[in-house]
Amino acid sequence: MSRGQNKTLSISAKLFAENRLRLVEAVKSKVSCQGSVIFLDGGKESFRYNTDSNNQSFRQESYFFWTFGVHESDFSGAVVVDSGKSILFPPRLHPDYAIWHGKINSENWFQKRYEVDEVYFADDGIIADVLKKFNAKKLLLLKAENSDSGKALSPAYFGGINEHEDIFMFAVDVDLLYPIITELRVFKTDHELEVMRYVGKVSSEGHKFAMLNVKPNMYEYQLESLFQHSCYFHGGCRHLAYLSIVASGANSSVLHYGHANAPNDKQIEDGDLCLLDMGAEYNCYASDITTTFPANGKFTENQKIIYNAVLHASSEVIKAAKPGIRWTDLHILAERIILTHLKRAGILKDDVEEMVKARLGAIFMPHGLGHFIGLDVHDCGGYLGDATPQSPLPGLKCLRTTRTLQERMVITVEPGCYFIDTLLNAALADPYLKKFIVVNRLNDFRNFGGVRIEDNVVIWNKGNEVLTYVPRTPDDIEKFMTNGCNKYHFSE
Amino acid sequence: MSRGQNKTLSISAKLFAENRLRLVEAVKSKVSCQGSVIFLDGGKESFRYNTDSNNQSFRQESYFFWTFGVHESDFSGAVVVDSGKSILFPPRLHPDYAIWHGKINSENWFQKRYEVDEVYFADDGIIADVLKKFNAKKLLLLKAENSDSGKALSPAYFGGINEHEDIFMFAVDVDLLYPIITELRVFKTDHELEVMRYVGKVSSEGHKFAMLNVKPNMYEYQLESLFQHSCYFHGGCRHLAYLSIVASGANSSVLHYGHANAPNDKQIEDGDLCLLDMGAEYNCYASDITTTFPANGKFTENQKIIYNAVLHASSEVIKAAKPGIRWTDLHILAERIILTHLKRAGILKDDVEEMVKARLGAIFMPHGLGHFIGLDVHDCGGYLGDATPQSPLPGLKCLRTTRTLQERMVITVEPGCYFIDTLLNAALADPYLKKFIVVNRLNDFRNFGGVRIEDNVVIWNKGNEVLTYVPRTPDDIEKFMTNGCNKYHFSE
Repeated sequence: MSRGQNKTLSISAKLFAENRLRLVEAVKSKVSCQGSVIFLDGGKESFRYNTDSNNQSFRQESYFFWTFGVHESDFSGAVVVDSGKSILFPPRLHPDYAIWHGKINSENWFQKRYEVDEVYFADDGIIADVLKKFNAKKLLLLKAENSDSGKALSPAYFGGINEHEDIFMFAVDVDLLYPIITELRVFKTDHELEVMRYVGKVSSEGHKFAMLNVKPNMYEYQLESLFQHSCYFHGGCRHLAYLSIVASGANSSVLHYGHANAPNDKQIEDGDLCLLDMGAEYNCYASDITTTFPANGKFTENQKIIYNAVLHASSEVIKAAKPGIRWTDLHILAERIILTHLKRAGILKDDVEEMVKARLGAIFMPHGLGHFIGLDVHDCGGYLGDATPQSPLPGLKCLRTTRTLQERMVITVEPGCYFIDTLLNAALADPYLKKFIVVNRLNDFRNFGGVRIEDNVVIWNKGNEVLTYVPRTPDDIEKFMTNGCNKYHFSE
Repeated sequence: MSRGQNKTLSISAKLFAENRLRLVEAVKSKVSCQGSVIFLDGGKESFRYNTDSNNQSFRQESYFFWTFGVHESDFSGAVVVDSGKSILFPPRLHPDYAIWHGKINSENWFQKRYEVDEVYFADDGIIADVLKKFNAKKLLLLKAENSDSGKALSPAYFGGINEHEDIFMFAVDVDLLYPIITELRVFKTDHELEVMRYVGKVSSEGHKFAMLNVKPNMYEYQLESLFQHSCYFHGGCRHLAYLSIVASGANSSVLHYGHANAPNDKQIEDGDLCLLDMGAEYNCYASDITTTFPANGKFTENQKIIYNAVLHASSEVIKAAKPGIRWTDLHILAERIILTHLKRAGILKDDVEEMVKARLGAIFMPHGLGHFIGLDVHDCGGYLGDATPQSPLPGLKCLRTTRTLQERMVITVEPGCYFIDTLLNAALADPYLKKFIVVNRLNDFRNFGGVRIEDNVVIWNKGNEVLTYVPRTPDDIEKFMTNGCNKYHFSE
């Protein structure tokens, strides 16, 4: 894309109107009582510690965003179940806002922008009054407990929700809404998929930009910077979906490298593999892509062995990922393929099925095969529906979902193979696991780091759809890094 | 700077050892009792809402960072006042941390890295035990109320601080420490100034990079992206000090443009002025620079009038900013110069001193002249020392400090002149203010936007030091934008 030719995606308010329609239908099927109103609080602006500023733009809470598409902070919103009517409550801004922060928009402006039925500034008592006007008897509030973090969103609150202590003006239910809206978020609409395709493309371009500009002696964070810049400058992505992992050499075996204690600050060496796990966010929808490539543009034989093992697992999983297939089985499939390659390379020996049963796969791929992705990078709903309980076994216990795949789920496929000292030493100390390992050959791979290949996949009956567009085979990567078209260079 | 030749600044643990030494001396001068121990909690890692991930790296709380220089989250630390000994309490990490997040460092490793006297993992009861070992009788805790935001940091807490409810094992003081440490933060040491010079250079290069690459039809956020990339790629600045303001055309009169409701998303037009208020952060020290320049590289006559008014105010303030001078007086000086230029341009009429008294200056520069800068962009301490009470008058009420300047204060000098409809209309509706305004001429500047010029200045007896390095006169800017050396282009 050339500079100044902004081709970012326009977002229609219809995306969220459709979400609300689905929500009302789903709630109606579970609730008999008249006068139910869904009431949600959006995110609130906050600052660094006790200061009065921040270095990152406000980002809306995902459930609220899914329902209303509102980017501004400190909103509330309601959906009347009986009629499907939607109401937004923006904060009343101080007149000085116009001086410091810009135009104060009217209720009418918000109504048009977000295509809701009514808008009222949230002056004292207004929310309660409006809800009464809509004959609200029972409020459905969201208490969202995240199955990955255990953290919960607190149910919404507003002045007048209880007139006197312990005597609620409205009946309140905090249990019904969460599983309904979470389950709806698992299945992406056409509108949502359009956004996810876009952000997948932007992130893919960002990865390619980093891949083309890497040179030995650069620092890892310089690739992070190249990616960020590409996604924002060309794709309009102000936020990333998560903290970028740019791991070179042995660091590529640290699964969540890149945080404040390990901030992508190693100098990249000639001969290093680089593992980049980075994804942009657009209109709050996430992308989550991992590429692994040689810093100097040329794979060594050992690098090819591990890379091809993971690539084979990736392509087989993507082929097999169909409606009705349980995610747990695909995890095992990936393990089996990787173990087979490690055996072929002389690192492991004996029976692969026995290795799988012994959970040897989790020594080389300790994380889960992938996770739902949507408004959150680790999207919600992994343990709803037909999920089986979380396994206590190595590797499997890290699965963020155990459901069977269905149409319109979007999930990451991210097999990996790593040489992690802690785990290798534990395996060698275990007589049963040790018997599978050819120690001398394994030692060639100590400090190798690891390989991960991650794509975002939409499940369809007709065959799934991959939202990632980056060179994947060693040949393609080497060619791309040598001949990469000039258009990827910034100054073009 | 060429790619891969990383020249970021190394930070010595001596910076923080010196801070602790200053702290102990200052506390000793106020406290007679033996057994006083300063105890601080660092920042805690958190995630977006109820999820398990974040898209920005943890950033340490500034008071804790000033004292210990620790970048990792979830630490506590103590300084024994009698002996000056320093103790860090890192969190005990789960062994699985090594798989997911990287090497688990030892107590010894932290001791060497941060050059403190002792390090203990914060296992149950350990903090209380260690403090008892050091004969702690009274804990000095930090309850830091920010004079800009009114927000406070909660005092530190640890298991065992009170053995039984209401019976504290240690006496606790939450009032003494805050004014002492805040006042120390106001005066920057040589070690601190070295970092601030570095981040000033990095941010200046970032501004120049944006200035050289701007073209009409680009989007404002593309300049934000260029700045961020320059600061991170070349300067190693992972965080910015605050959210970037990239305002073009009329947006440049919105003082805090760039937030989520006004996210730098306008297309820049030929003829627009661009106002960029952006600063990087390095080792937690902030830079805060504003440049204003024409998108097409050539000032119009009207743009030159306003630009030169602000530039004149800036240079006179920087000349006058000396130890002993009260900040409030410099604010008035800036107003007076800008009003004089507006009168010369035929926008205002009558006596300038009368305008100043009438607070007409605040119509064109509604914000304060500047603020302390250091670990926070709006740094602490503005209303300590010899500060006069906050004025209720327009403009003056926005001053973040009213102190007299002293050696080693670092302060932003950021005069501005804006054409803000809300304020202009209010002035025209006020018979007393209206008499100064030449309405017809003023109307030439409706939708003009505004100009701000912001530098970071260290106050010295020998004459102050400006930490910003960007072209400032209209001539220099026009030349730079035409002939800007190729080295600023990314692909060099």
